[in-house]
Amino acid sequence: MSVVESKLRQLGITLPDQVPPVANYVPFVITGNLLVISGQVCFGPNRQLADAHKGKLGGEVDMAAGQAAARLCAINVLVQAKAALGDLDRIVRCVRLGGFINSRPDFAPLPMVMNGASDLMVEVLGDKGRHARTTVGVAELPQDCAVEVEAMFEFA
Amino acid sequence: MSVVESKLRQLGITLPDQVPPVANYVPFVITGNLLVISGQVCFGPNRQLADAHKGKLGGEVDMAAGQAAARLCAINVLVQAKAALGDLDRIVRCVRLGGFINSRPDFAPLPMVMNGASDLMVEVLGDKGRHARTTVGVAELPQDCAVEVEAMFEFA
Amino acid sequence: MSVVESKLRQLGITLPDQVPPVANYVPFVITGNLLVISGQVCFGPNRQLADAHKGKLGGEVDMAAGQAAARLCAINVLVQAKAALGDLDRIVRCVRLGGFINSRPDFAPLPMVMNGASDLMVEVLGDKGRHARTTVGVAELPQDCAVEVEAMFEFA
Repeated sequence: MSVVESKLRQLGITLPDQVPPVANYVPFVITGNLLVISGQVCFGPNRQLADAHKGKLGGEVDMAAGQAAARLCAINVLVQAKAALGDLDRIVRCVRLGGFINSRPDFAPLPMVMNGASDLMVEVLGDKGRHARTTVGVAELPQDCAVEVEAMFEFA
Repeated sequence: MSVVESKLRQLGITLPDQVPPVANYVPFVITGNLLVISGQVCFGPNRQLADAHKGKLGGEVDMAAGQAAARLCAINVLVQAKAALGDLDRIVRCVRLGGFINSRPDFAPLPMVMNGASDLMVEVLGDKGRHARTTVGVAELPQDCAVEVEAMFEFA
Repeated sequence: MSVVESKLRQLGITLPDQVPPVANYVPFVITGNLLVISGQVCFGPNRQLADAHKGKLGGEVDMAAGQAAARLCAINVLVQAKAALGDLDRIVRCVRLGGFINSRPDFAPLPMVMNGASDLMVEVLGDKGRHARTTVGVAELPQDCAVEVEAMFEFA
């Protein structure tokens, strides 16, 4: 078992099967040694959106639920990385995460929400998981998801 | 005539002339074999913003108009790609589209709007047009445009 | 003294010390000859957020303050670039700026705000500072900052 996969197992995380989007876009594209991953929303392992992870921060979604939603996005990013690379040990570096938080216009502690994704990435990948990051609060997200995270990885 | 240009002609799409922005940014930058294109808004071929493509999804802009606006953004992306590369057949892959939808805070079917851009890219470029994608709903866009799309391409 | 540093001095700009974020993300990541910089908010040289640069465009933050905030973001981007590269003369090109403006839903002149960042980049880097750019208005930003700017540079 790969190093990263056994780390996921230690954390009790099972990567769900990858479900490609039914549209003219794809979950990831490889260019050179860069892996570009489409924005992943906070579906759970069963590909369902939990009620707790639906809606806006500063509204019906509280900080803990927002952080859990961000963590789910990061797990879904890893699902796509595994589908792209076969073996997550091929990841050299998580280069960047873009975090979009579904927010009321007065909800400022956005980075704390996004830490749910950043922390997962470092728990799983160690120092290779330390990434550049941009976090913003947006007016709405697909299916009213609380969080969406896009990613770029370097791989070997 | 290039393959991509003849595909555009089949679709009845004439790429308007490229109009560079009058500011300290540029419509595109090339780094290595990557072409990075600035966010393109939904101006029509005459460089005018139609009333139908101005305003918010979930408000004055309905789904069909939003999809048409996203399609215009994708056409404007191709205008910049042609200005950058000379020949659109040099495109190896549309790596990524970033879609920003001018949305009311309760307008969740954002991906359906963005499909207007994704579908155009694949209609014109075929499998080379299948891209990673991030779609979010934002509070406002330049000139109150309904949609803005940024892009990254790999080229040869 | 490097060319870029002396240009900064001419403009009366002192780059503040870099303060790394206390979280599982980092201010920048290098991949190949690309430098990816995390979203930088509009803190001043003292790492404080001025009241004038806190809040929304179209609300309590007027155009001049918004442009000043965008300029501060660009300075903070250069702080990170210097920390990453040691010498800003190693910059080959500012490839892309992503500008996020904390906006009321009816504030459309977003590009004018973002020019505060774009102009600084070209003042300091000359033609190497001309970048691709995406500007959007978002519902909220970390600490209710008026502007956040992320960046990608090519370096040698």
